[in-house]
Amino acid sequence: MNKTDLQKIHNRIKPYVHRTPVLTSHFFNKITGVELFFKCENFQKMGAFKMRGATNAILNLTKEQKSKGVVTHSSGNFAQALALAAESIGVKAFIAMPENAPQVKKEAVLGYGGIIKECDSNAIAREMEADKIQLETGATFIHPSNDDDVIHGQGTAAIELLEDYPNLDYIFTPVGGGGLLAGTILAANSFSEKCKVIAGEPANADDAYRSLISGKIELNRTTHTIADGLRTNLGDRNFPIIKEHVAGIIRVEENEIINATKLIWERMKLVVEPSSAVAIAAVLKNKENIKGQKVGVIISGGNVDVSNLPF
Amino acid sequence: MNKTDLQKIHNRIKPYVHRTPVLTSHFFNKITGVELFFKCENFQKMGAFKMRGATNAILNLTKEQKSKGVVTHSSGNFAQALALAAESIGVKAFIAMPENAPQVKKEAVLGYGGIIKECDSNAIAREMEADKIQLETGATFIHPSNDDDVIHGQGTAAIELLEDYPNLDYIFTPVGGGGLLAGTILAANSFSEKCKVIAGEPANADDAYRSLISGKIELNRTTHTIADGLRTNLGDRNFPIIKEHVAGIIRVEENEIINATKLIWERMKLVVEPSSAVAIAAVLKNKENIKGQKVGVIISGGNVDVSNLPF
Repeated sequence: MNKTDLQKIHNRIKPYVHRTPVLTSHFFNKITGVELFFKCENFQKMGAFKMRGATNAILNLTKEQKSKGVVTHSSGNFAQALALAAESIGVKAFIAMPENAPQVKKEAVLGYGGIIKECDSNAIAREMEADKIQLETGATFIHPSNDDDVIHGQGTAAIELLEDYPNLDYIFTPVGGGGLLAGTILAANSFSEKCKVIAGEPANADDAYRSLISGKIELNRTTHTIADGLRTNLGDRNFPIIKEHVAGIIRVEENEIINATKLIWERMKLVVEPSSAVAIAAVLKNKENIKGQKVGVIISGGNVDVSNLPF
Repeated sequence: MNKTDLQKIHNRIKPYVHRTPVLTSHFFNKITGVELFFKCENFQKMGAFKMRGATNAILNLTKEQKSKGVVTHSSGNFAQALALAAESIGVKAFIAMPENAPQVKKEAVLGYGGIIKECDSNAIAREMEADKIQLETGATFIHPSNDDDVIHGQGTAAIELLEDYPNLDYIFTPVGGGGLLAGTILAANSFSEKCKVIAGEPANADDAYRSLISGKIELNRTTHTIADGLRTNLGDRNFPIIKEHVAGIIRVEENEIINATKLIWERMKLVVEPSSAVAIAAVLKNKENIKGQKVGVIISGGNVDVSNLPF
C-alpha cells in the first residue's frame, strides 16, 4: 500500500466522512512539555474514526456484493459506523449484536438504518450469527478491525493530520483490535519521512503489548477495562504491520485512563470516550521520552453515556 | 462605537485571546431546520468569552492605572477572566469572592495569579469589599458586564463569527448581566447589513425579558436556575443597547436548559456549561420562526464541574 493508493482511498471516502479539526491545548503542552496536536475523530460522523474504515470497505465492494448488503458483529462503534456508512452508500447493513447490549446502542444502530440480529453475548455466538446472516442473505462480512480495507480507511485520519502538520515526530493512537494502529502506521510511513507511531493500551487488556514481545498474536487475559472499545484482540491482517513498524506500546492503568478522560473533558472541553483517553494517558506516562517533540494524538471517539461517568 | 473602532479593539486583544473555531452539526441542523454555526467560546482561554472583555478593559487603562491593578467582584467566569487577562498583561488582579464560593473556583483564580479577598455571600458585601480594595490599593474597578470596554470586548466573538460567516441572518446569545448580548449587538450592527441578535434567558431569572417589556431595568425575582452565569441583572451601560436593538428575548425553562446541555454534550461532543445551552434551548424553542435561516450561536463557555452534572 503506497502513498498513491492511500491517497486514492482518502479521496474516495471524502464525500462520506468529515475532515475533522485538529485542536491544540496550552494546558496539555504545559504539563507534558510536548507540542501536541489532537485529531478530533470524536467530531467524526457517528462520533468515531470507525466511520472511515467502514465507508472504505463498503465502497470497495462490487455492485453485486453491494446489492446483497454487508454484515458485521459488534456492539460498539463499528456497528454504528457500518450502519451509517451503508445507509449513506445505499446498502443494507446487518449487525449481529448481543441481546443484552445497551438499548441506547441498539437504538443508535437502528437510527442509522441498520438491521439488528440478536444473539447470545459471547464471541462464538456472535460469529455464528454473522455466519448465519451471510449464508441466508449473501451479505459480505466486514470485520471491525482485521480487514485490509478497514485498516486503510482508518489510516485516513493520520493522512489528514499529517497534511495539516507535516512535521510531526510521533502519532499516538489507542490500540484495541488494531485497525486504527495499523492504518495509522501505513499512513505515517507513506506521508512522512520521520513520523513514528506509538500506541496506548489498557494494562488490563494488553494483548498487543504481549504480542509484540512474543512475536505472535496473544489473546487478552482479561477485558476488565473502562476503555470498552479496546477489549478486542489483534488479528492476522493488522498484527504483521504493527509488529514490524510500531515504535512502542505503552500500557496504562484504569486510574490513568479515568484521570486522562476527566482532564480532557475539563481542560479541552471535549467529550471523549475512555478508549480515546488511553492514547493521552500514554502520552502523559511517556512524556519524558518525547519532550520538545511534535506529537499528534488521534482522539478516536466521543460516544459515551454522559449520564454514567466514572468521575 | 463604529466598525473601525470595534476593529481596533479586536486587533488590540488578538494577541491575548484565541480565535475560537466555528463548528457545525448535521444533527442540530436536522432537528431545527435551521443552518447553525456554533462559535465555540468554550475553547476560549480560561474556558469562556469573558476573557475578551476583561482583556480589553485592562488594555484600555492608563500606565498609572495598570501599575495599581484591577479589582472586580465575581465568583464565576469573570473572576477567572480578569485574573488571567491581568496576568497576561502584567497587572495585579484583586477579586472579591464570597467565602463560601466553591474551592475549585477559588483555586482557578489563584492558579491565574489572582489575589482573592473573601467576603460574605451577598451582593452588598461583595460590592463593599470591592470598594474597600479600591480605596486601599488604588486598583481600578472593572464590572463583569456593565462596563463599556467589557461590552466591546465581548463583541469580538461576534466579529470573528461574522468574518467567518458574513451571511448570518441571526446570532443567538445567552443573556445574564447583558455584556455579551450588548457587545454582540454592536458587532452585528457594524459588521453586517442584516444580522439580528436574539437572546435566550432562563425563565427563572428573566430580568432582561421583563426589562424589555417595561422599558426600564427590572431585577430578577428569583435566581433559581442551573445556568449559574445568568443570575445577574442588566445594567445601565448595556440595557440601552439591548432595549434599542435586540430582536427578541426567548425565555426557557430549566428542563429545556438541561436537555439542551445534554444534547450538545452527546451529539456535538462539546463540554458546555448550562448557561451556554440557554442560547441553544432558545433556538430549539424558536425554530419555527427561523426555519431555513443561517443562525450563529455563541457557545459562551465550558466551565462546569464534570463530577456533578444535572443528568
